[in-house]
Amino acid sequence: MTHNEEIAALRSDYRKSELLEKDVDPNPIHQFRIWFDNAMNAEIAEPNAMCLSTVHGNQPDSRIVLLKAIKDDGFVFFTNYHSSKGLQIEANPNVAINIVWLELERQVRISGTAYKISEEESDRYFYSRPFESQVGAIVSTQSERLNSREELEEAMKSALEKYQNEKPVRPKHWGGYIVQPNEMEFWQGRTSRLHDRLQYRLINGVWDIIRLFP
Amino acid sequence: MTHNEEIAALRSDYRKSELLEKDVDPNPIHQFRIWFDNAMNAEIAEPNAMCLSTVHGNQPDSRIVLLKAIKDDGFVFFTNYHSSKGLQIEANPNVAINIVWLELERQVRISGTAYKISEEESDRYFYSRPFESQVGAIVSTQSERLNSREELEEAMKSALEKYQNEKPVRPKHWGGYIVQPNEMEFWQGRTSRLHDRLQYRLINGVWDIIRLFP
Repeated sequence: MTHNEEIAALRSDYRKSELLEKDVDPNPIHQFRIWFDNAMNAEIAEPNAMCLSTVHGNQPDSRIVLLKAIKDDGFVFFTNYHSSKGLQIEANPNVAINIVWLELERQVRISGTAYKISEEESDRYFYSRPFESQVGAIVSTQSERLNSREELEEAMKSALEKYQNEKPVRPKHWGGYIVQPNEMEFWQGRTSRLHDRLQYRLINGVWDIIRLFP
Repeated sequence: MTHNEEIAALRSDYRKSELLEKDVDPNPIHQFRIWFDNAMNAEIAEPNAMCLSTVHGNQPDSRIVLLKAIKDDGFVFFTNYHSSKGLQIEANPNVAINIVWLELERQVRISGTAYKISEEESDRYFYSRPFESQVGAIVSTQSERLNSREELEEAMKSALEKYQNEKPVRPKHWGGYIVQPNEMEFWQGRTSRLHDRLQYRLINGVWDIIRLFP
């Protein structure tokens, strides 16, 4: 078997669960909470890791961010507002989120709009982080070119010394976004690729649910 | 602790590995093969699951697809060309791929252009799939509205009967894409959020490597 034949043969037959209309919550954020709790209770590495996609120009871009709160109106993550994703969101706040729990044969797809959260909320989260992460966020000009690993470690070392005597302060350009969804799909893998896909769409302020062909 | 405090507190301190300039292959596809093999050899669910992002209009969209081959010029996956992703790619072939191996504290980000692969290659993969998956691909008008689970199962049942006596034929609208990269980032989680990020950019046909601030 060649290497690519080996890759081509990687497939799972999904049999763990099913997703039926009668079982889902009419509100997709409530339904998300149910699935997220299932993932938290399963033995899954980083159940809150999600792929955030943005657009710059005509080109999509994506990276992992960590979900840090589920609110009644959306999903919160934190970043450097001057990072690539921050700049892309400022230019075009339309984003997509994909969160997948492979062990549960589940994925959730979210389309929505990203808004900055309040300074108070960003403060609250920033100061809840470990000291080293606070200093790391201050030191790193995220997404910019870095000459070497040593340069970063040197900067971190100096900053750690400085902040021995001084409380780190959240940089104004570091904070949270909330993604308010207008479409969410819940995908449950099924056998023979006949997966369950239920899609919620916000129409005139009301969530409508349809099933999609897999 | 509230539910959101519990989510906010979900964090890992990444300590498994490091990614230094001296250790990477000058060609990002070769480097990808190394990391992919590491993932294949680790106990990871679906190491070939990757998040594919497309753009429709001004809005990103993303979903999981399975990597099915690593070629010298890019990354191959299969789909229904009439699915949402297929239509989006026809309108705008710029795509992004994010593949993450959380257990290895690694992610790879790819920006590139998607092209249809040859009919012969699509045939070869289609006929290598299990019989039920071949029939499932024929039955499913992917991404279109489906009235009920029963309708899909009914259609599948009829098709399985039909193809007892007749070899399934790959639908012309089902096949592969290759994503040819113009930018690839290898991300290795490090402690205190001082992650290693090496970005390859294709400049006049030559791959240049730079380090980015985490």
